[in-house]
Amino acid sequence: MISKWWGWGDAGREYHLPDPQRFWRYLRARLGPTEAGGRIDSLERVHLSPSRLPVATLSALTGIVGQEGLSTESAERAVYSMGKGYKDLVRIRRGQVANPTDAVARPQTEEQVTALVDLAARERIAVIPFGGGTSVVGGVEPAGRGPVLTLDLAALAGGVRIDSQSSAATVAAGVTGPELERHLNPAGFTLGHFPQSFEFSTVGGWIATRSAGQKSTLYGKIEQRVQALRLAYPGGLLATPAVPAAAAGPDLVQLVAGSEGTLGVITEATLRLSPIPRHQDYRGYLFPGFTDGVAAARELVQAGLRPAVLRLSDEAETESALAMRPPPQGMAAVVERAGRWYLSRGGLRLETACLMILGFEGKESAVREQSAAARSILRRHDARSLGAAPGRAWERSRYDAPYLRDLLLDGGVMVDTLETATTWDRYLSLYAAVREAIRGALGDRGVVMAHLSHCYSDGGSIYYTFLGPQERDGEIEQWERVKAAATEAITRQGGALSHHHGIGSDHRAWMEAYLGSAGVEWLAAIKSALDPGGVMNPGKLIPGPPLPANSSPAETEARSG
Amino acid sequence: MISKWWGWGDAGREYHLPDPQRFWRYLRARLGPTEAGGRIDSLERVHLSPSRLPVATLSALTGIVGQEGLSTESAERAVYSMGKGYKDLVRIRRGQVANPTDAVARPQTEEQVTALVDLAARERIAVIPFGGGTSVVGGVEPAGRGPVLTLDLAALAGGVRIDSQSSAATVAAGVTGPELERHLNPAGFTLGHFPQSFEFSTVGGWIATRSAGQKSTLYGKIEQRVQALRLAYPGGLLATPAVPAAAAGPDLVQLVAGSEGTLGVITEATLRLSPIPRHQDYRGYLFPGFTDGVAAARELVQAGLRPAVLRLSDEAETESALAMRPPPQGMAAVVERAGRWYLSRGGLRLETACLMILGFEGKESAVREQSAAARSILRRHDARSLGAAPGRAWERSRYDAPYLRDLLLDGGVMVDTLETATTWDRYLSLYAAVREAIRGALGDRGVVMAHLSHCYSDGGSIYYTFLGPQERDGEIEQWERVKAAATEAITRQGGALSHHHGIGSDHRAWMEAYLGSAGVEWLAAIKSALDPGGVMNPGKLIPGPPLPANSSPAETEARSG
Repeated sequence: MISKWWGWGDAGREYHLPDPQRFWRYLRARLGPTEAGGRIDSLERVHLSPSRLPVATLSALTGIVGQEGLSTESAERAVYSMGKGYKDLVRIRRGQVANPTDAVARPQTEEQVTALVDLAARERIAVIPFGGGTSVVGGVEPAGRGPVLTLDLAALAGGVRIDSQSSAATVAAGVTGPELERHLNPAGFTLGHFPQSFEFSTVGGWIATRSAGQKSTLYGKIEQRVQALRLAYPGGLLATPAVPAAAAGPDLVQLVAGSEGTLGVITEATLRLSPIPRHQDYRGYLFPGFTDGVAAARELVQAGLRPAVLRLSDEAETESALAMRPPPQGMAAVVERAGRWYLSRGGLRLETACLMILGFEGKESAVREQSAAARSILRRHDARSLGAAPGRAWERSRYDAPYLRDLLLDGGVMVDTLETATTWDRYLSLYAAVREAIRGALGDRGVVMAHLSHCYSDGGSIYYTFLGPQERDGEIEQWERVKAAATEAITRQGGALSHHHGIGSDHRAWMEAYLGSAGVEWLAAIKSALDPGGVMNPGKLIPGPPLPANSSPAETEARSG
Repeated sequence: MISKWWGWGDAGREYHLPDPQRFWRYLRARLGPTEAGGRIDSLERVHLSPSRLPVATLSALTGIVGQEGLSTESAERAVYSMGKGYKDLVRIRRGQVANPTDAVARPQTEEQVTALVDLAARERIAVIPFGGGTSVVGGVEPAGRGPVLTLDLAALAGGVRIDSQSSAATVAAGVTGPELERHLNPAGFTLGHFPQSFEFSTVGGWIATRSAGQKSTLYGKIEQRVQALRLAYPGGLLATPAVPAAAAGPDLVQLVAGSEGTLGVITEATLRLSPIPRHQDYRGYLFPGFTDGVAAARELVQAGLRPAVLRLSDEAETESALAMRPPPQGMAAVVERAGRWYLSRGGLRLETACLMILGFEGKESAVREQSAAARSILRRHDARSLGAAPGRAWERSRYDAPYLRDLLLDGGVMVDTLETATTWDRYLSLYAAVREAIRGALGDRGVVMAHLSHCYSDGGSIYYTFLGPQERDGEIEQWERVKAAATEAITRQGGALSHHHGIGSDHRAWMEAYLGSAGVEWLAAIKSALDPGGVMNPGKLIPGPPLPANSSPAETEARSG
């Protein structure tokens, strides 16, 4: 459980800007004055409607998970009723929990999960699987009017079992990133999966949402690492065969991956591992403009090079990153001045160029050979090396963004991120169109910046960050305006509706525009075939009515009475 | 259309053994005497039951594809009613076509395919998509009692459209391997997909069956190369978005890949391309035994090396490969003798060791760096280099096996191949168990040999070839005995029911043993949700009754009357 209910991370941990004055000066110059946002002191001040689960159901639930495995306590229900999106934080800071779950169950075994799903299907109670609760698309918030049971999978048994010979590990769904790597590393392995939510998100959540880590260009998205999985669904337990590849019908792993709890609850997965890299070569480069950097990135991956990290910031993001740095002093200032002189000879200015972090890792000889091949490509695209320091700086701050978001919210700044991916032929036009759409929705006082961070031979991702002064008491509407403008531009331009955040409830209105009517029909038909009662995370992913089929309001009332 | 109806390849092409006497001597020593098998002279001698399609339906069909686009002619129907498995060849050589299709339609546009599928769904006619017709698992043979329409997709428009920027090509489903590469190569690209059926099989067929090429360790299986596809199904046309990656629900591409025509007809696919390799380094190595070679292969892929070809023959296959070579003469004989002496110093004998073909390709520096890394791994596993000659020999004969099969059938020899894949921890025990199961079913007079040819970090494939003297007039039963013994051993040992041949009708009885009851339920539920009339290639892939739901024998009779 994440204990800082009003923001990101553990309650004890505070995030400090290297140079707060410089940073706020940079922001205020663009956003104008902002009004500090308040927040309630304690979750005790949140009053939820009482649990709608009838006493008989609660007693059946404790029969499965025990008294200590079930909670209907208000503060706890509040925490489990939202993810960690901007919209979530705005509301929880005000003490608003619009759609509370009715109970939180903590199964300890797969049998308990199966029994809970069975019971829920029989009694038409919606089930929401909850891993780290880090969804930024409304994935864990109840979306129907019927009663809801949230399954916290953190206590699920099984841990991490390594098969060194097959370079694979079987992992319980509730295992978090650090816990997983803590088991794998001593055996010489890594999963190589480091999403920004790494510290808190779970294996089951990664698979359910098709997560991508910051090193996905080398290690792949999570769905490529799943050899097999187990899923409790209303009809029983699906256990896919543990084979490296097959030609034995459609791949059910790829049907479960991305299903966001709408088909069942992932209880366990067998993941393909990689050897811990023995050698790393991370460097920063500066390009005259985003177009040059994108061309270099494309050429690089199409030449077969596989950097662990290839992160290319556009001009705005490069400028903002520089504003976050502590000001150089003493010898560092001399070096900085020398660096600026060196760049200026190539016609580059730090503030109007584009920063690329390019990192290779693996065996030393392979890293050396790939780095050399990459440098020759980069040179052709007018890149200037900044040495190893920018790589180290990225590594240090790679999980910081969500912590920084809390500071911005305290300061009255709306801040959110959104992302997509598209093929290279459409990349630059989509990049510009979505940026303009966000700018338009933000108005004059706003900042939009973006980066490319997941590269494929056929295309890449685009990740936007946008900031604006919060419109007091209209925060949600303001955010929805920006979100809608951006998402419409993305689907119009043929981008992925999401590359790694998922659909949840925030993106579902655009699913038909993205997937086509036949695609949405397929998802809906598959969902009803496998979950005829519609109890699995209703109101997510697939557009349509959020309520379980036969759960009329009257019935719901009768139950909670 | 493949014109050699009784065997493999074009009617004009004949295959010659380098040294027939030596080869037959090798075989007869193991199989004993065999009785030459006869075959009918001409397809004209095949008499099929008349087409069951009513006149009104035939007229509706010609309304869609024109007179020239529809055939109910007997010899043609015969050719489209079988694939190219051993069982198929045995039967067609006798003039037996047990389950003839009722008509062959040749749509030229996607609209025609959609209209044909629509009509078939309305009239409850089974639809069988037909690409190259090279299925070895009964994938294209009618399996129900109702009327059947086969769709030959060879004439489907669209060709090959290359998007160089995105390194992708959009390809009509009926395009064959050579046709595809002929378009791609001048633009600097290759798909790198070279299954043994390459000369005749099609893009649509590859995707429908999750095909793997001989270079899959580098280029991946076909399902990894599909960016997007279009599929005509009874509810309309599914067109998946063309994006490099997404987190927007289950991956529908991976649901269609491997569906073997049971969900719809693939009309087009966008495939990810690779640059044509500029440099190749293919070599042969000899290992003291299969166990050493497997250990080396595993270490190699787990170290991140990606050879285009890694093919490791077991002792029996190595011996048989040597028996196929022309006998060395003159200078070559001297070199051969020197080679044998060199091997003997390492305790190796050509005939009792295991041959590995290991080939890297790509940019010169990358090939050099990978070859060197591989050699140092191979040395640790007691491999001896045989130089480049074995690599060249493999390259020359890579599509020959099915041609050779025709010669063996002429000579009265039962010959077939089967394959699986499993994780490394189970690899050697599965290899031995399946080999013993085949040996047991073959009896004393039989040969079983195997190789590893598709490697993954978590496991590898195993491909068996078995030979025995044909039991005259009991050929099918004899083959079924071996097949059942092998397949039971595969599923018992946790192997994939197929790694790249598919399920068709031959493997479907084992689907539940492989996929579990829940997995089979999922496939069946998805199939009925998307094809409620059960018209799409019934009787394939999913265990269960082969007939369309409401097509009773009485009805069928009425229709064909």
